[in-house]
Amino acid sequence: MTPLITLTTDFGSQDGYVGAMKGRLLSLCPGAQLVDLSHDIPAQAIRQAAWCLARAAPEFPQGTIHLAVVDPGVGSMRSALLARTARHWLLGPDNGLFGRLLEQEPPVGLWHLHREHPHWQAHQSFDGLHVFVPAAARLALGDAPDTLGKPVKAFHHLPDPTPAWTEGRLNGEVLTFDRFGNALTNIRARHLEGLAGKPLIYVGEAWLPLVRHYAEGEGQPGMALINSDGLLELAVYCGSAQAALGLGEGSPVYVATA
Amino acid sequence: MTPLITLTTDFGSQDGYVGAMKGRLLSLCPGAQLVDLSHDIPAQAIRQAAWCLARAAPEFPQGTIHLAVVDPGVGSMRSALLARTARHWLLGPDNGLFGRLLEQEPPVGLWHLHREHPHWQAHQSFDGLHVFVPAAARLALGDAPDTLGKPVKAFHHLPDPTPAWTEGRLNGEVLTFDRFGNALTNIRARHLEGLAGKPLIYVGEAWLPLVRHYAEGEGQPGMALINSDGLLELAVYCGSAQAALGLGEGSPVYVATA
Amino acid sequence: MTPLITLTTDFGSQDGYVGAMKGRLLSLCPGAQLVDLSHDIPAQAIRQAAWCLARAAPEFPQGTIHLAVVDPGVGSMRSALLARTARHWLLGPDNGLFGRLLEQEPPVGLWHLHREHPHWQAHQSFDGLHVFVPAAARLALGDAPDTLGKPVKAFHHLPDPTPAWTEGRLNGEVLTFDRFGNALTNIRARHLEGLAGKPLIYVGEAWLPLVRHYAEGEGQPGMALINSDGLLELAVYCGSAQAALGLGEGSPVYVATA
Repeated sequence: MTPLITLTTDFGSQDGYVGAMKGRLLSLCPGAQLVDLSHDIPAQAIRQAAWCLARAAPEFPQGTIHLAVVDPGVGSMRSALLARTARHWLLGPDNGLFGRLLEQEPPVGLWHLHREHPHWQAHQSFDGLHVFVPAAARLALGDAPDTLGKPVKAFHHLPDPTPAWTEGRLNGEVLTFDRFGNALTNIRARHLEGLAGKPLIYVGEAWLPLVRHYAEGEGQPGMALINSDGLLELAVYCGSAQAALGLGEGSPVYVATA
Repeated sequence: MTPLITLTTDFGSQDGYVGAMKGRLLSLCPGAQLVDLSHDIPAQAIRQAAWCLARAAPEFPQGTIHLAVVDPGVGSMRSALLARTARHWLLGPDNGLFGRLLEQEPPVGLWHLHREHPHWQAHQSFDGLHVFVPAAARLALGDAPDTLGKPVKAFHHLPDPTPAWTEGRLNGEVLTFDRFGNALTNIRARHLEGLAGKPLIYVGEAWLPLVRHYAEGEGQPGMALINSDGLLELAVYCGSAQAALGLGEGSPVYVATA
Repeated sequence: MTPLITLTTDFGSQDGYVGAMKGRLLSLCPGAQLVDLSHDIPAQAIRQAAWCLARAAPEFPQGTIHLAVVDPGVGSMRSALLARTARHWLLGPDNGLFGRLLEQEPPVGLWHLHREHPHWQAHQSFDGLHVFVPAAARLALGDAPDTLGKPVKAFHHLPDPTPAWTEGRLNGEVLTFDRFGNALTNIRARHLEGLAGKPLIYVGEAWLPLVRHYAEGEGQPGMALINSDGLLELAVYCGSAQAALGLGEGSPVYVATA
């Protein structure tokens, strides 16, 4: 079967680093199908890459290899993770990149890649090409994971802050923004489902109507909705909630009940 | 035969939304060939996406499915369009996205996707993944379009303003800009061919030489040429006409005759 | 065998020009595997594209066709180059784009494409689509290069300035920056290997420690290292050397010995 390998990096494309990785993958695994998830992750933004992977990776077919490199610690002693879930293989630095995804798709096996292997040697400035690409290729060619690394019990994770109940209201916060300036919060659909009354969403002093989809918020200064990730999202119709509501990462969001 | 599906969105790539669509397409249609047209359409810029599709889509092989999502009205009652031309399938919101393309490649069939179907349900915040991807997959797998939607007679279109003759000159305007700052106008090659004399191009008070290609305009403050779309284009050699000539969408362009 | 064709341009993706090229390639060569190296090369930045190609192209399998279009002289009399190396085919304007790559992978054949050919005609505003795509397709379909162009003996090259020894120190300079703001210099690993003593790297008055990888430079105001291109690179841990050290193209870099 044709191996399917996805690529996620913060390399951009203009320097040719991603091109080099694709070329070597196709040299080592002729005919592999390569799919770009993103190369526009902001530089060294592990959390942003973790969101991208958690949204996209689960949708891929059984057996897909997800290779991701956002790696401020390249060349250091940070470990290289190989993870197996019920459906996918994950391969990249063990720095939290895969934490959000592995929350959704729990690992059934975890390994730290050997630093030295007949096909690679770590401690270089471009592990993406020199370590992760050959490791992905060996995996695609059918090598057993135990030949690539040593089994480990845990992976690095950067957990979200948990929303807290105080004085009858739920105190959440903005986690991140998407390209449209929509704000994603740490409040989940299940938090709202458990409420005693109708949820009222507040950002600072401003109340935002809870709508089902963006078009319902047309003409409003802002809106809140449960998005396709199952999270409470703040949005502005055809605009940026980040700009219009003056939000940043960590901005407080409250849920009270009517 | 391997299905060929192109993707055009304003999602960017960094959030993982496009990656999710690709993954689900490959899960539903294993082995499909996916080609990115663009994910860098400015947010909600339907007209820009319409240009991109009109330039790129016609070049693809017979049977290609063009899936496009630039959709300020996602989740609202706007309809989802399926169009068939002599060569291609088009699938996306019926908001004008495909108007420019369907002018060039007239439809031989038009449908509005059912809002409910065994494979999808509309009214969500991410119809790209939840409606358009499964519809594209059904099409790729050979489902008849009548099972996916109900036939309709018209599609939404955002027509260009027509240039007008007054006092012996043709009054056109700038429609849009490309990445290089070249300005595309609503004056077509055929407008110039029908003139009584040699065409003289003016932008404001400035006369621009009509050249055959960019290099001919080297050393000039600006130039006009008929581009590969058959439109009058304003350009500056190795520079941006938008910046250097102070142009915006709607800036007037005149053609007089010598 | 499935032809493999890579694409490198400064077209961006939003205008549909790259999409048009992909569509026509797939129409002319059904089933070809297309790989994007980059479409985000800054407008008309031939040197940047040359770096991208030199890094990425050598990694691809035997027989890959590398098509690149960064072409300020489109439509002029500049020639269109077809080059063959021991492993690859290169196709694009003969303006220096392939110079850096051909230094690494010397040509075994060079041709200038015919301006007129049954499958194309030059002198248009979009040679990428109208000349280079059909030429790449003929090559992929097995046409002999002598049917596509006439043999020539040289290719255009934009060489780097050579570092010079004066007063016992090596005077180099910054050539370019990558996406992270890392500065690439014209000082090579072999320059440092030939030194009488321990190399000391200076940028202006500032001394930079020579490290093996980025993580070693944590907590330092800057660092120097030999990168995966074999060049001396200036970097700042999790930051931009360009911004933090106030560097530009041509900024002087010295190597003295301890």
